[in-house]
Amino acid sequence: MAEEGFVRADVYEKLTGHAQYADDIYFPHMLYAVTVHAPHAHARILSIDVEQAKRMPGVAGVYTAADIPGENQQPADKPMLADQVICSAGDGVAVVAAETLEQARAAAKKVRVEYQVLPAIFDPDLALQPDSVPLHGDSNLACEHIVSKGDMEKGFAQADVILEREYQTQRIQHAAIEADVAVVVPEHGGITVYVPCKFPYNIKNNLARTCGLPQSRVRVIQPAIGGSFGGKDIDIIVVATRAAMVALATNRPCKMTWTREECMMEGTKRHPFRLRYKIGAKRDGKITAMQILGTADAGAYRSRSLATIWRAAVEATGPYEIENVHTHIRAAFTNHVYSDAVRGFGSPQVDFASESLMDELAQVLGMDPLAIRRKNMLREGSIAATGQKLTQVSLPECLDRLEREFPLGEPEITPEGKYRARGIACLHRGESYGAASRDPDVAGTDITVRPDGSVNIYTSISEVGQGTHAVMAHICAQLLGIPDERVTISPVDTAYVPDSGATAGSRGTISGGNAVRLAVLRLRERIAGAVSAQTGDPAEEIIFADGCLYRKDGTKLMTFDEAIALCHAHGVRTDACGQWVAPQTSWDFAKGQGNTYYAFSYGAAGAEVEIDPVSGQIDVTRLICLHDIGKIYNYPEACGQITGGIAMALGYTLMEEVEMKDGQVKSRNFDTYLLPTAMDAQQIQALPLAVKEAENPLGVHGVGEASTALVAPAVANAVARATGIRMRSLPLNLEKVRAALARKGENTDA
Amino acid sequence: MAEEGFVRADVYEKLTGHAQYADDIYFPHMLYAVTVHAPHAHARILSIDVEQAKRMPGVAGVYTAADIPGENQQPADKPMLADQVICSAGDGVAVVAAETLEQARAAAKKVRVEYQVLPAIFDPDLALQPDSVPLHGDSNLACEHIVSKGDMEKGFAQADVILEREYQTQRIQHAAIEADVAVVVPEHGGITVYVPCKFPYNIKNNLARTCGLPQSRVRVIQPAIGGSFGGKDIDIIVVATRAAMVALATNRPCKMTWTREECMMEGTKRHPFRLRYKIGAKRDGKITAMQILGTADAGAYRSRSLATIWRAAVEATGPYEIENVHTHIRAAFTNHVYSDAVRGFGSPQVDFASESLMDELAQVLGMDPLAIRRKNMLREGSIAATGQKLTQVSLPECLDRLEREFPLGEPEITPEGKYRARGIACLHRGESYGAASRDPDVAGTDITVRPDGSVNIYTSISEVGQGTHAVMAHICAQLLGIPDERVTISPVDTAYVPDSGATAGSRGTISGGNAVRLAVLRLRERIAGAVSAQTGDPAEEIIFADGCLYRKDGTKLMTFDEAIALCHAHGVRTDACGQWVAPQTSWDFAKGQGNTYYAFSYGAAGAEVEIDPVSGQIDVTRLICLHDIGKIYNYPEACGQITGGIAMALGYTLMEEVEMKDGQVKSRNFDTYLLPTAMDAQQIQALPLAVKEAENPLGVHGVGEASTALVAPAVANAVARATGIRMRSLPLNLEKVRAALARKGENTDA
Repeated sequence: MAEEGFVRADVYEKLTGHAQYADDIYFPHMLYAVTVHAPHAHARILSIDVEQAKRMPGVAGVYTAADIPGENQQPADKPMLADQVICSAGDGVAVVAAETLEQARAAAKKVRVEYQVLPAIFDPDLALQPDSVPLHGDSNLACEHIVSKGDMEKGFAQADVILEREYQTQRIQHAAIEADVAVVVPEHGGITVYVPCKFPYNIKNNLARTCGLPQSRVRVIQPAIGGSFGGKDIDIIVVATRAAMVALATNRPCKMTWTREECMMEGTKRHPFRLRYKIGAKRDGKITAMQILGTADAGAYRSRSLATIWRAAVEATGPYEIENVHTHIRAAFTNHVYSDAVRGFGSPQVDFASESLMDELAQVLGMDPLAIRRKNMLREGSIAATGQKLTQVSLPECLDRLEREFPLGEPEITPEGKYRARGIACLHRGESYGAASRDPDVAGTDITVRPDGSVNIYTSISEVGQGTHAVMAHICAQLLGIPDERVTISPVDTAYVPDSGATAGSRGTISGGNAVRLAVLRLRERIAGAVSAQTGDPAEEIIFADGCLYRKDGTKLMTFDEAIALCHAHGVRTDACGQWVAPQTSWDFAKGQGNTYYAFSYGAAGAEVEIDPVSGQIDVTRLICLHDIGKIYNYPEACGQITGGIAMALGYTLMEEVEMKDGQVKSRNFDTYLLPTAMDAQQIQALPLAVKEAENPLGVHGVGEASTALVAPAVANAVARATGIRMRSLPLNLEKVRAALARKGENTDA
Repeated sequence: MAEEGFVRADVYEKLTGHAQYADDIYFPHMLYAVTVHAPHAHARILSIDVEQAKRMPGVAGVYTAADIPGENQQPADKPMLADQVICSAGDGVAVVAAETLEQARAAAKKVRVEYQVLPAIFDPDLALQPDSVPLHGDSNLACEHIVSKGDMEKGFAQADVILEREYQTQRIQHAAIEADVAVVVPEHGGITVYVPCKFPYNIKNNLARTCGLPQSRVRVIQPAIGGSFGGKDIDIIVVATRAAMVALATNRPCKMTWTREECMMEGTKRHPFRLRYKIGAKRDGKITAMQILGTADAGAYRSRSLATIWRAAVEATGPYEIENVHTHIRAAFTNHVYSDAVRGFGSPQVDFASESLMDELAQVLGMDPLAIRRKNMLREGSIAATGQKLTQVSLPECLDRLEREFPLGEPEITPEGKYRARGIACLHRGESYGAASRDPDVAGTDITVRPDGSVNIYTSISEVGQGTHAVMAHICAQLLGIPDERVTISPVDTAYVPDSGATAGSRGTISGGNAVRLAVLRLRERIAGAVSAQTGDPAEEIIFADGCLYRKDGTKLMTFDEAIALCHAHGVRTDACGQWVAPQTSWDFAKGQGNTYYAFSYGAAGAEVEIDPVSGQIDVTRLICLHDIGKIYNYPEACGQITGGIAMALGYTLMEEVEMKDGQVKSRNFDTYLLPTAMDAQQIQALPLAVKEAENPLGVHGVGEASTALVAPAVANAVARATGIRMRSLPLNLEKVRAALARKGENTDA
């Protein structure tokens, strides 16, 4: 395990303030556009009067849904501007463009929209009642997934104890420091779009559709990105389309930057879940059956609910081998702001529930939390609830390591009178898109070696702060036998870089890295071929190392630079394409069985908490997360990525919540929407492990998201062990804990 | 021959004023840089005092040669800023950068340079005298080339008549409307450079050297280009390096735009030539020997003299098969502003001489100009002076066609008393770089088909106004069986597009077009492979036409769009690289023999002139140029390119001249440096022919330069036929003609 790392290429510019973010970009004659948002959660648009707004100083144009140059989005998905019906408060109704931002804002206030307010529905379970008025199509069922294995009746019949519990998770926001923003320049018969994003080709292809342009004339350029956390995708399409419609109508560059309030009000959120678990187990801890019924709040539009809910269904049992399982999770349309992928993508919700449940079962059976997990945990060759046979399962090793690093110990009272205890959690997590995705799981990467031996890599994997680009450069340099600093990742620009798919599902390093490897292999073949033609050595025996090419007997053929010069002198191209096609997956939607993800990663976490009995404040005094990532290419960055995930999960666990009332977002800025700060993250210990190599040529697992899923249950379990109080609803904020402590005497099932 | 054409993609933006040229580009916090030029033709720099300039308002920095971050250019090539010695008036000595252009200009006047003036040399023949003080190295010989065939003594012994004549050509400027300009942005640990250029990778790789950066961190982006005419290369490197040194020193974007005066004073020029011909012929017109001694004025630095002089040497005999030839052309360093490639690249100079000489010989022998040419002209299988056996020779057909289109007739006096006559000229011209070039003659092009079936082409062939990009898009569309408008050429950006070599040597369509073809063939294989895997049809039998894929029996397999969707669904990449490697050439520098160019193109021209006996003004009343371009892909654009070449040649013939006195450029703007206007170009008739397909898969010849080489001799021959006066020195301006007319009574050898 190499614990030395290498420095990310983007760090210097970001630390010195030279990084250029989208909102920093300015073009001469650029217009500023703002959105007019609807105030109602559900309403019919009776009329829009833009005349007064158009006459305001500096206004270049006012646009409504009728002006969208292409398609105004698919049915049940969010329209770029609301046409006829408003489905959630904050929906965009019009766009106002003016010479200055102030003029655009002033004019936006003069757009008069007449609404007929309609009855709204906010409870997803109520929304799914047969008599509920559907927001889209025939019903409010945005999507549903089942996973089914064994015989539930038999399973519960075998059980000595049966528990039924309900868990709830809340709505959160990606909350990247950088708000959603787009700068669109009309040029070359199309548009060039400067946007922070995690899936450049998704933006490109969606904008081609909404703008009515061929894909070849929509160019998406990624400036520096100020955080993604699973966002910077659907919201960016909305913002960019609105800026693009202005740019195309006026033939002038146009910028739209959402305020924080707009991000909170109209931007996508993490799905809140309500999960009802019924579990049966033998006295020895062996689980015989698990039934899961879940409802997620999709909000007003479908977005990526399908993939999020499916992942939740696949992972809902936790990392346990259970013979009889039935999982059924539905997502419902409501008049809430809509939900989408947030870093973790369905896992944090079900992992909070299933790992809380394991401790509850252990408590009922009088077992140790580690023991009940070991009794049921996935092992090499286990059959998951989906029927999938699992390989390279390293959960046992993760739990052993956790036990060594972080003994559970006994609950205690601190000298200050606080409750103190430790809790644990563990997980399996499917990698990349999974079988239910409609996007092919493919990543292209191209590599060019310049005549001077310096190298450019072309990829559309996004550097959202996670350090993937540095890993890709490192893999390339290693395979070519040259120093890392020779390799530069060219800025992501869809006019040129190949489609590498989304930087999502923790697939960046797996997909991007393996595509780099394939490109380098092809490149080495090409270079070795040219050298072989010159020297007569068999091309396939030439070795690339230490800046040189060697024969297999170790004698030096020439330097890498000489080999490149040789290629260029003979017109042999020193570039190559790599195309990583993920291993096949499959899913039978009707049966709820299949090979869901081509790989799973495993991890475990421990949390130590101290609870103030008066205020209800939970202090997390230690937090350790260990993740088997197969092979570690950059130890410090792996730690960094896990640490970042844990910090985000801490917010989810303790404080973050987009509070809503009657469909209105109440927490509209960071004064009321609380985020953890560096002060909250001091006790974090990230521990990347290399236990079992993943089944891809590089041997790597992703770790972007797994790290977000373990904190909530570990903390909740620690709280339960410390206080005897089981918190089943996130976040575990001090109001809730204080109320539960007050009720403690009467009933611990708070 | 398809006489319909297709519209160039760049036309709309250029015609509507939306095209973005480099000088239109602005970045926030951008600095403006100006050059401090040396006033002397030859001087030693004793000291440079920048202190006063540095204290001027708004000044960000003042830089001299010591501040060049990398290499200050190769020996005998122009330094980016003069170090110690000034070799020509106008050489850059310092760069001043300030917040505004006005401030930079004001501060530049405060840079104090102390010089020791050195004796200067301006005559290239004197410069080559053994006792001459060398400007660089051991001698003032910048380069020399010989071509040698047969036995000169024997050849002249066989002659019935021997003529000796001397011809001179002048120094001209590229004179693009757009001046030389560069905008340099320091970013991503390197620089992004916005420059108009004809060889983006040459700019990139030179800037990497002058800026001390790896090539992977120098990114050259081509905005719209306001004309090249063989320029926008060496001068751009100078301008861009000066802007880059500021950008790197200050970490701020920097723009340098030369004024017209700076372009005239410091920018490269066409080599002036002095050519002494000795020709021997039989009474029947058969040429027995030709001896050519030439001197070109390279000016102060070598630049591309080597390739220019070599082409002149190869083509100096004109398109004739002569048994005994000795050509020796030298380029000399002088203290004049330096020479470089200008559209035509050595041909216009020698073609003026050799084709004038043919008419002189015809006159002495009492032969018809057509007859003497037919007697000696290159035919299929002829052996050129270089020993090269020529194939696909279409000169006989070109002359036949010229005779039909433009009968020579007899000289006459017009009713207004003007002398009127017709003259002709013809040529062979080597294609692309030729064997003496140090650049490999290679062109890469990549093509990507988007999921919606729209296509991007990546190339670094420059669209300098000649329409190559439209031809490349058309070739791609034809081979894919889709409409032209589906295909977009992505903007040239060396961070992404492959190296396609220079847009020079008339190679754009040959090299770029053939690379496109190779990429499409590979792409079709890939698409057909995916379709074959689905349908079972043999991949190699699938036909692409009319937006569909067909079996060879003509039954339709699926639409092109369906095939692309199929590829994307299976992760098959729909992109491919094409790499055109030009056929092998060779050259024995010592023997002066070899396979010089992989192909030659042929053409002929006729000019009709009327000369005012009082003013000496030559009116060209008709000008026809016909060029066999093998295969015509876009008839109107081929006509356009020939017409543009002829217009440029008209300027060379009649008026253009960079006048110099004591090493100073006297004609510093378009008030004294005269260019032809649209009014001068009304009588031009361009006639692209498709006589013999060129020996490359597309069958095309280039025509960017051949069209610049025929006008001067055709006009000079017409003048001689009309007035009996032989003009042997370009340009044929009215002062010279008037003087010659005055002398006419005494001596016709003016």
